[in-house]
Amino acid sequence: MFTYNIDEELYLRLVDIGDRDAVYKLTDEGRGYLREWLNWVDGTQKPEDTTEFINMSKKNYADSSGLNAVIVFNEQVVGIAGYNLLDWNNYIAHIGYWLGEGYQGNGIMTRVSKALTDYAFDHLNMNKVEIRAAKGNVKSRAIPERLGYIEEGVIRSAERLYGDYVDHVVYGMLAWEWNKHGTRS
Amino acid sequence: MFTYNIDEELYLRLVDIGDRDAVYKLTDEGRGYLREWLNWVDGTQKPEDTTEFINMSKKNYADSSGLNAVIVFNEQVVGIAGYNLLDWNNYIAHIGYWLGEGYQGNGIMTRVSKALTDYAFDHLNMNKVEIRAAKGNVKSRAIPERLGYIEEGVIRSAERLYGDYVDHVVYGMLAWEWNKHGTRS
Amino acid sequence: MFTYNIDEELYLRLVDIGDRDAVYKLTDEGRGYLREWLNWVDGTQKPEDTTEFINMSKKNYADSSGLNAVIVFNEQVVGIAGYNLLDWNNYIAHIGYWLGEGYQGNGIMTRVSKALTDYAFDHLNMNKVEIRAAKGNVKSRAIPERLGYIEEGVIRSAERLYGDYVDHVVYGMLAWEWNKHGTRS
Amino acid sequence: MFTYNIDEELYLRLVDIGDRDAVYKLTDEGRGYLREWLNWVDGTQKPEDTTEFINMSKKNYADSSGLNAVIVFNEQVVGIAGYNLLDWNNYIAHIGYWLGEGYQGNGIMTRVSKALTDYAFDHLNMNKVEIRAAKGNVKSRAIPERLGYIEEGVIRSAERLYGDYVDHVVYGMLAWEWNKHGTRS
Amino acid sequence: MFTYNIDEELYLRLVDIGDRDAVYKLTDEGRGYLREWLNWVDGTQKPEDTTEFINMSKKNYADSSGLNAVIVFNEQVVGIAGYNLLDWNNYIAHIGYWLGEGYQGNGIMTRVSKALTDYAFDHLNMNKVEIRAAKGNVKSRAIPERLGYIEEGVIRSAERLYGDYVDHVVYGMLAWEWNKHGTRS
Amino acid sequence: MFTYNIDEELYLRLVDIGDRDAVYKLTDEGRGYLREWLNWVDGTQKPEDTTEFINMSKKNYADSSGLNAVIVFNEQVVGIAGYNLLDWNNYIAHIGYWLGEGYQGNGIMTRVSKALTDYAFDHLNMNKVEIRAAKGNVKSRAIPERLGYIEEGVIRSAERLYGDYVDHVVYGMLAWEWNKHGTRS
Repeated sequence: MFTYNIDEELYLRLVDIGDRDAVYKLTDEGRGYLREWLNWVDGTQKPEDTTEFINMSKKNYADSSGLNAVIVFNEQVVGIAGYNLLDWNNYIAHIGYWLGEGYQGNGIMTRVSKALTDYAFDHLNMNKVEIRAAKGNVKSRAIPERLGYIEEGVIRSAERLYGDYVDHVVYGMLAWEWNKHGTRS
Repeated sequence: MFTYNIDEELYLRLVDIGDRDAVYKLTDEGRGYLREWLNWVDGTQKPEDTTEFINMSKKNYADSSGLNAVIVFNEQVVGIAGYNLLDWNNYIAHIGYWLGEGYQGNGIMTRVSKALTDYAFDHLNMNKVEIRAAKGNVKSRAIPERLGYIEEGVIRSAERLYGDYVDHVVYGMLAWEWNKHGTRS
Repeated sequence: MFTYNIDEELYLRLVDIGDRDAVYKLTDEGRGYLREWLNWVDGTQKPEDTTEFINMSKKNYADSSGLNAVIVFNEQVVGIAGYNLLDWNNYIAHIGYWLGEGYQGNGIMTRVSKALTDYAFDHLNMNKVEIRAAKGNVKSRAIPERLGYIEEGVIRSAERLYGDYVDHVVYGMLAWEWNKHGTRS
Repeated sequence: MFTYNIDEELYLRLVDIGDRDAVYKLTDEGRGYLREWLNWVDGTQKPEDTTEFINMSKKNYADSSGLNAVIVFNEQVVGIAGYNLLDWNNYIAHIGYWLGEGYQGNGIMTRVSKALTDYAFDHLNMNKVEIRAAKGNVKSRAIPERLGYIEEGVIRSAERLYGDYVDHVVYGMLAWEWNKHGTRS
Repeated sequence: MFTYNIDEELYLRLVDIGDRDAVYKLTDEGRGYLREWLNWVDGTQKPEDTTEFINMSKKNYADSSGLNAVIVFNEQVVGIAGYNLLDWNNYIAHIGYWLGEGYQGNGIMTRVSKALTDYAFDHLNMNKVEIRAAKGNVKSRAIPERLGYIEEGVIRSAERLYGDYVDHVVYGMLAWEWNKHGTRS
Repeated sequence: MFTYNIDEELYLRLVDIGDRDAVYKLTDEGRGYLREWLNWVDGTQKPEDTTEFINMSKKNYADSSGLNAVIVFNEQVVGIAGYNLLDWNNYIAHIGYWLGEGYQGNGIMTRVSKALTDYAFDHLNMNKVEIRAAKGNVKSRAIPERLGYIEEGVIRSAERLYGDYVDHVVYGMLAWEWNKHGTRS
């Protein structure tokens, strides 16, 4: 399989049709937990909805506008991570991620995000990586903070989440910073 | 003609093929002035490039993802303004604008931006309007500041401009703020 | 809003999604009246059918092949008018229109058609404007006759209308005629 | 080959890539003669332009919106005939045709048009067949007149022909007329 | 109609919408018989499924990637034959065919296949014609054998047929062979 | 990087824009050698032609119709391998590959082809894997023979190669055979 190995426990694999059932199961079983911060959970009501996500991911991969991978931890699919958007006009990669319920607390997301930051600078030659997290999503915000990203602003009402509006904190890491101050591996 | 009348001196008109020559002339004659902050100037070398911009604008209008209008001041085309992006998932309109060289200092852009803010809230039912300006572009930043927009952050290296990277200041206005505190007409 | 002002009572506005409910209501409440001469009435059974019409209208606008506007009379949407077809090979604009039940007798359609004829010659630089009306549709035929259009022929069985075939009377106005003999404003 | 046999001398064959050279030659050698009434002659400057016509013809055939065939007379390609438009909303077929220079005077076009009229009523179940000819194109107008078509009108300035505008005479034949009064074979 | 005449009893006609009912009837009435070797029978449950086949056939015809015709025997539609694939990179035509139940034993398929082989070499200038048949389909294999095609291999498990896998025998005829040894007419 | 690790010396990486220069160089420097059996070499005259190949590869990956990877040997791009076609109707994967000049004789292609055979059965759940090689291409034919593939036929004139026609030998491996008799790792 085409994988990006992070360490002995952890690797990323480009999301593909073969991952549909595992990804849908992760969504379906963690519904209550996931929908607190993810706006697509309620719209994912059957495996076919996950198929659509996978097809869109492959299409984005094909035109280099994004990349989604499954996170495999000890040979189990535990979440999705990748680049929501690869902005080739301005050389900015936007990292996005989510973990299924019960997989927090193992440092998975920190390791994955560090790897994706490395990959963006080393293989995609980006000038900047951005991570956006909802203001109230403490766990998600901890990731870029732990990796040394700089908080650049709080974009108000940036996302509509099941009728409410949530603010987004924008975190940024520039290429030169990652080499100098970041927690680069 | 299909116009959005702002006051006796000023109206907007959906950009169309008939505007090509005027818009190209404005670009061509103000090249040195415009390229300081606009990343598309060097790529606009002949009227056909402006045709492409107009066709893309009409396509965006057709699928409701954006809207570009020519600014007509005393019966002369003096610039372009509109919504670079209409984000219907999150109900955010992103205003963009530029004026040809020599038309500054008449309050044109402030009046236009106020009108576009009104329109976004009143006719498009948006929840938020955003204006982004390069950090060093004092004239452009003055517009949202004058209209009571809130500065929400400085997104670093947000745009590649002829080899350099410039920071963007994000200004936001929420629907309830506009009604209460903004300089709504 | 992007409007084409005709007089104090009357303006046209490019049809957009925000007009869907008003246009559907006009269709639905005037069904019996409208279907006598309009072949799309029976196929419009729910608001989504009107959405399709609006999207097609915006697409036609984007590629300059047509233009549909809502007719606003004393701040109320009372019908649709525009160009069914803009034939840029031969410089002919084909005007089409319909009014909701109960809005006849105010001279609305004559004023609108005169405005659209002006617009076609003045802003679109057309060489000819055509209006086609079903032979038996006396009210519709009165419009071009009142404006000085020339009857050019009766095209037999030109339209299938719910199983029957109706003849079309073709009316034409040439650019030089409009300037000389027409009821130009 | 897929052919529609008219008589011992004459058949039609769906136009295909194999006909390109013969059709281009016919165009190129009859340029001066053909451009008097055909608006596409000057735009056909090399065999590749004929390829485009053929591809468009095949596309129209595929979506049933038109049909173009080469006319083969004594085993020689002598012209093009078919339906410019098949209007399935209103059950009207629009016949179009042209003959290369030097092939007039053999009754070819009359036989072909009669066959296409038969085909439209018998195999396509159309309700009407229309033939349009430029007012001054006496030879072209003679065809529908000879076949008993009814003149329905003179549409003024219906076509732009190399800068000038020409009027079109519209001829129509209804299904019941063809069976009763037409020169049906 | 556009036909390819084979002999007094037999001709091919490019498949078109007018053939839908006849083709569907042939499929529906011969279901049990046809599904033994044809993988699309179970997926054809209503006339609309045949419409899809016809539209795909016309699209293939339009881009020259294939050609499907109805086989007309004594004025009755009895089957489908044509080229599943026209490989213009390698100049190979792939013949495909099926007959409705009850029409075997008249030599129809042999005559049709001979005609399609002629057509591929004479009008399409192909270098090779291939016919593939399931290993166990004795009647289908007899056709290329009778025409002098060479057996080139048995491709194992080449087709999934309702859950089972069947082997394909590949038969080939080269242009020079057809002229010299084949049963060319 | 997303890779499929074969052994300590060798891995595959989904081909992407970042590989363009290396792949073009390999093509350009091995031109004389490669064109003996590869029909696309003469059509690859500049890096942009390789870009087209890469974009097509990514598109095929996105719709699961194929997969192309660069072969990395001791950290150097030495060739391309993957599936020319993934036939999901019949569960057959078609392996294709080429090595740059000077990289033969290291067992690279045997290892790669074994890995791709494994992957097709283990991760894509295919029923069969096919490898086709030109009859005269001894080195290429040695690969499937070494891995235990069965020779199923010689398809004559299967490929046009710069004006000549070459025969293809078809080799097949079925899922149950690979598990039982193949050189599965």
